[in-house]
Order: sequence, then C-alpha cells, then structure tokens
Amino acid sequence: MATKKSTSSLVTGDENGSPKWAQKTVTLPSKKRGCHLITSTILKEIESDLARFKCGIAHLFLQHTSASLTINENYDGDVRDDVETWLNLTVPEGRKAPWKHTMEGDDDLPAHIKSSTFGCQLSIPITDGRLNLGTWQGIWLCEHRDHGGARKVVITMTGV
Amino acid sequence: MATKKSTSSLVTGDENGSPKWAQKTVTLPSKKRGCHLITSTILKEIESDLARFKCGIAHLFLQHTSASLTINENYDGDVRDDVETWLNLTVPEGRKAPWKHTMEGDDDLPAHIKSSTFGCQLSIPITDGRLNLGTWQGIWLCEHRDHGGARKVVITMTGV
Amino acid sequence: MATKKSTSSLVTGDENGSPKWAQKTVTLPSKKRGCHLITSTILKEIESDLARFKCGIAHLFLQHTSASLTINENYDGDVRDDVETWLNLTVPEGRKAPWKHTMEGDDDLPAHIKSSTFGCQLSIPITDGRLNLGTWQGIWLCEHRDHGGARKVVITMTGV
Repeated sequence: MATKKSTSSLVTGDENGSPKWAQKTVTLPSKKRGCHLITSTILKEIESDLARFKCGIAHLFLQHTSASLTINENYDGDVRDDVETWLNLTVPEGRKAPWKHTMEGDDDLPAHIKSSTFGCQLSIPITDGRLNLGTWQGIWLCEHRDHGGARKVVITMTGV
Repeated sequence: MATKKSTSSLVTGDENGSPKWAQKTVTLPSKKRGCHLITSTILKEIESDLARFKCGIAHLFLQHTSASLTINENYDGDVRDDVETWLNLTVPEGRKAPWKHTMEGDDDLPAHIKSSTFGCQLSIPITDGRLNLGTWQGIWLCEHRDHGGARKVVITMTGV
Repeated sequence: MATKKSTSSLVTGDENGSPKWAQKTVTLPSKKRGCHLITSTILKEIESDLARFKCGIAHLFLQHTSASLTINENYDGDVRDDVETWLNLTVPEGRKAPWKHTMEGDDDLPAHIKSSTFGCQLSIPITDGRLNLGTWQGIWLCEHRDHGGARKVVITMTGV
C-alpha cells in the first residue's frame, strides 16, 4: 500500500524567461473504493518542478477508465463519503442494473460511467511556484472499482 | 454586487514568435443559484491579452467547490433554467437526501456534487486573437449555492 | 458520411528546443446517437504533428453543445452502448421530462445536459511523439442528438 514510484521524468527549458516543460508519471498505490484526497501526495511528487514556474499550467492525467480525478472540498471527509454515496445512487449496479458489459464484475461498468462523469484529467494554474487552488480545493482520486489496483497519473507542467 | 476586480495580472513573452503567458484573477460578483452566461464578462477581462495570441489556449479555473464552469448553449435562457432543473433532479437535497455533511446547509453537499459533475475548469483554443468557440457555445458559471457570494476565476493564457 | 476535412492548420516553432504550437480543425462526419470511438480518426489527423513533440499537451475542443468528448474504454463496444443507456436513464426525455426548451425537439435539451456532464474538451499528455493514453483508454465522441450532423473538433498541440 505504501509503494509510490515515479517514472519517465523529463524537464526542459531554462530559467531565463524561456518556457519550460516537465513531465513525470506517478504511480499511486491501490486505494479502496471511494473518494480520496491526494493533494499532498501529488505536491510531494512535483514541488521541486513547480518551484521553477512563475506562471503556468499543471496537467494531471489519470491513465485509467474506471477511476477519476476531480477537484473538490479538502477538509471534511464526510463530503468525500457523501459524493461516493451519490455516485452509487446515480449509477445502478448489480441486479437492478441494465448493463450488457458484466463480464468484469458488477462494479466495472458503473466505474466506467463514473469515470466519464467526473473525468480523468485536470488542469490547474501555477502561480509563483505553487498550484493556485482555492482555499477549500483539493485534488481527489475517486476509485470506482472495488479492487482497482495501483493507478498511474501523468503530470505535465509548462510555463515560464 | 457589481464589484468586479482583477488581481495578480502577469504577462510574459514577446511578439516575435516566442511563446507568451498571461494570467489574471477575475472576481465575479455574487449570482443567484442557477446557470449564468458569462462569456462577455470574461471576454471583457481578457480581450486585450487575447489579441496578442495567434494560436494558443485559454484556461479558466474556478477556485471554488460549490459552483462550476461549463460550456453550453449561448442563446435561449430556458436552456440554462432546464439545466438547473436537471441538476436539482439528479442530486437529492433536504429531507429526502442521505448526506452526512449537513452543517453548512441543505444546499452545500449537493453543490459539491454538482461542482464535480460539471467541473471547475475549462480550456478553450485561441485562434487569431479570439476564443475559438462554436457558434452556439458560451461560457457558463453555474452557481450551486443559494447564497454563494463572489466567485474567483484564474484565467491563464498561453500561445504564440 | 465519409467526408472528413481539415481546416485552418497552423504550425509554429522549431526543432531546437523551442516550444511549438500546432492547431487544426477536424470535421467528423455525422454519427448516429450514441458513443463512438474516434481515437484512430483523430490520430490520423494529427500524427505528423504529434511526432514533432517529445513532451507536450494535445487539446481537443468540440465546438458543439449537444455532443461531448470523453475518454473511456477502447475495447468492448458494449461499454459504449451501456454508457448511452445510462445517459438516457439519467436525463429524462419526451413526455416525462420537465423541460421548457422543447422547440428544437425532444432530444435537444437532454443533449445539452449530457454535453455539460461529459464535457466538450480533453487535454491529453504527449510523450515521445505519441498521445500518452493508458492501455485501455480511447477518445470517444458522444453524439447526443438523433440527427446531429457533422461535428467540428479544434485540436491544439503544444510542447517541445
């Protein structure tokens, strides 16, 4: 559960006003079904790169179709539980569900729907070397499978 | 209610083919719950910066977790009303709702769900100094709280 | 049905570490209502541009408000059918629907809602000249109208 590794890191550009690019792939350890706050995990992976940008964009791309990335409340864990409750209310699962694609388990097709509803990608402004999130905003990984396994996020930063 | 101010404006780059960046924070005055067309408000804030880009991307990032940004129909106000109707149909609120997070009011947790459903960020292509929207596309701010207050949008532009 | 044309293509920058931009508009032929895998169609349009980027972002922007772009499963067509089934479950249409905006047909207002739920834009990382999608990820065009007509996608690439 505590394995976290980074691969394919690339940094280009220079410090003299020329735009820079940085890209790395972060592997997040397996999480249980539900919504998880991952802001600090992501920041730990990119903070040294982030510090080089006065102005830019950070792009997070989840390479999976049964989980999602979203930005939401960073404080009360009940909010994350309630959002998971709503996802299950709004997407039928199991006997009551009309899905044709069932061979990968009852939770699989609902997971695909939830992934497209929240999306697998985020772009966040960079200002003065930091992600310019609002006070109450955090980055969530929403795991829509019962046993989703490790999840990869490709993080791309560009700016000046 | 009519205060609109811009902060932390930054412009870099030059006119000779070198990529440019511009970033500013726009504060939108408080709006009533529902969907609002804000294309012209946003354009007024960025049109002088936009004009400098022949090709690029404009990124809008709403720094809040109980409102959202989306692109939708720019003509008939009934569409905006109907989308608000659907949001309220699809996310239970009040007595019928199963939420744990209720201390900030009946409209708060539903607002968080709606915010993740539509999202808080938009990327729009810039072509020849203009946002390259389709004929019928407009930028909407969807206010999901009953009394949401002013809302901040960080606008980042980059291109050549 | 087979017409596919590209317009307003623009490429800037050079091969020596300087950031580049490329932008083109792709017109996709009319598709029937439902979810369609368009990865290979999109790749055919941009692969020569893509090959010039070692690291970057590709941005796809659908210029319409009654269809959507999303990333989801690229293998089993049943998944696409099931997602269309869910879209119709979650957005009422016809007699049972409470919409005010009905003059463009029963399928129009539901199409607007679905468009904002999945969104009209995607940003995908570019790594070593290729879209850095996960193994099972594909690009979907979701057509929410019964007779939607051709659809335009503005594709913008930037990177080094």
